[in-house]
Amino acid sequence: MTQPRYDVVAIGNAIVDVLAPATDAFITENGMTKGQMQLIFSPDDADALYAKMGAGQVISGGSAANTVAGMARLGSACAFIGQVADDELGDAFAHDIRAGDIRFDVAARPGQPTTGRCLVLVTPDGQRTMNTFLGASHFLPAEALDRALIADAAYLYIEGYLWDPEEPRAAMRAAIAVAKEAGRKVAFTTSAEFVIDRHRADFLRLIDDGQVDVIFANEAELVALTEATDVEAAIARLAPKVETLVVTLAEKGALAVAGGTRVTVPAEPVAAVVDTTGAGDLFAAGFLHGRTHGLDLERSLRLGAICAAEVIGHVGARPVADLKALAAQVLG
Amino acid sequence: MTQPRYDVVAIGNAIVDVLAPATDAFITENGMTKGQMQLIFSPDDADALYAKMGAGQVISGGSAANTVAGMARLGSACAFIGQVADDELGDAFAHDIRAGDIRFDVAARPGQPTTGRCLVLVTPDGQRTMNTFLGASHFLPAEALDRALIADAAYLYIEGYLWDPEEPRAAMRAAIAVAKEAGRKVAFTTSAEFVIDRHRADFLRLIDDGQVDVIFANEAELVALTEATDVEAAIARLAPKVETLVVTLAEKGALAVAGGTRVTVPAEPVAAVVDTTGAGDLFAAGFLHGRTHGLDLERSLRLGAICAAEVIGHVGARPVADLKALAAQVLG
Repeated sequence: MTQPRYDVVAIGNAIVDVLAPATDAFITENGMTKGQMQLIFSPDDADALYAKMGAGQVISGGSAANTVAGMARLGSACAFIGQVADDELGDAFAHDIRAGDIRFDVAARPGQPTTGRCLVLVTPDGQRTMNTFLGASHFLPAEALDRALIADAAYLYIEGYLWDPEEPRAAMRAAIAVAKEAGRKVAFTTSAEFVIDRHRADFLRLIDDGQVDVIFANEAELVALTEATDVEAAIARLAPKVETLVVTLAEKGALAVAGGTRVTVPAEPVAAVVDTTGAGDLFAAGFLHGRTHGLDLERSLRLGAICAAEVIGHVGARPVADLKALAAQVLG
Repeated sequence: MTQPRYDVVAIGNAIVDVLAPATDAFITENGMTKGQMQLIFSPDDADALYAKMGAGQVISGGSAANTVAGMARLGSACAFIGQVADDELGDAFAHDIRAGDIRFDVAARPGQPTTGRCLVLVTPDGQRTMNTFLGASHFLPAEALDRALIADAAYLYIEGYLWDPEEPRAAMRAAIAVAKEAGRKVAFTTSAEFVIDRHRADFLRLIDDGQVDVIFANEAELVALTEATDVEAAIARLAPKVETLVVTLAEKGALAVAGGTRVTVPAEPVAAVVDTTGAGDLFAAGFLHGRTHGLDLERSLRLGAICAAEVIGHVGARPVADLKALAAQVLG
């Protein structure tokens, strides 16, 4: 097995976020659950919601894309695989990911649907309620995978969100096979409870088959995935099946279990929670950067907490501060 | 003369801002002058600069559009006239302006060029260096003017930036004629020195002909317009020709001269200057809201200073805070 050229290659939704402030009443009136992500399947429904939203700002997003954006800022060598359309928002997504020194080679898809977008409503408490129209992201074909690239990365990182549409699901299964054959590790984020509810059997089979080395989940996702009675029972059931289980605990911090060792770290203090979009994505960025750069479990968790704290202090799910400087306290 | 239904109808560039952080070295290496706006005429040049920029965020912009966005947030009744293309960025612009309760009826223009965009490089000191590709904004035809709408607004507000391309220049001349015939006031922002250098004779003729009631300019623009030796000489030359001359003085505040009376206000304190994009636009918003709602010169200037302070405290040229609440200290 040769030394990999990349730390991580991620496969995920290639979408832009449209972020706008909203009241709690707006969330309720429009039948959303605060803090959750739901899929919008019809372009008309997406347009109708957009029309009701306040003035917004467009910032590149996508869960796994946010994670590699954070890792690259920390100095990891990263690549991204995802599908945009040949339109202006697709141009913006491609520009931003390349501007972050992330390799991105998937050709834009001509015609409809448009590049995917996530309509993010940010309530005064900083929580984000997400409505995702996957658009072109839905149509990532297995042929778009660069197998040599996947074999050349220490980790393949995939997001549960992309398990929902059929074509990318097949692509991700193919990618996992390539990574495993090359002796690489697979990291998987469970993304959201609704994703787990739809694909629990798939996810558990992958884990039981030893296809997943690292799992990222929050408490609710972990319980949903295992159908355990509580978080501790869920950890006891899942931890022995993977190399590393990482559980994010929101304001309580995070924990990781690896090889029977369990480490917990507190959350990093934040001056003001402005927008929690991307908190989990950036936690994964810090943790994986640590693990691919020789840090132990505890320091990797702390780096995750630092990156998550940075991203919730401003609007948007991509880091804006100098993460390397912030990380110096852990890495130095 | 009937009571107007709108406080202000603005004509301006309908563009989106793409904001990205940049170093001072990047500004110099790419032949820009920090803090200035320059036009990009070729789509290829715009693409080339965009490719070199860091990851950005897209927020609706346009000088006069920012001003009505601020006025509407303060409670003014506003309308906007400007040209977008029939594309995604045009949709975003139209969405945002309507989401701000601003009337906007101009149909999107099919085909090329795309919706205009301003590539804004924000240096660590918060200054913005702007590179504007006008795109569809360039092609606002005089036929797009809703004459009844213009006649139904207390003020017509126009931006110097839009004087540069031929078609909108003709449209603005037509709009001024409509406003004047209806007995309305015309407010004009000089926008930038390069605009004045190209159109000084036009601007001075409009002023000499009594077509302009209110001028907004910063010190450099005022000197450039009058070709005076200093700001005081420029004020002495211009103030007698208009009802109100408003001069913004950056961190020194602002002054206004009207009917021989001169009032100066200090700048509003700002916790941290994050991005000065839109400072002048929002100053005009506060001032004009004051003047259309019975405030005297001094309180109108203070309201302008408050709005400018809000917008430089965050990324983007549209207000995000509750301007009405901020304004209560002046209006209450």
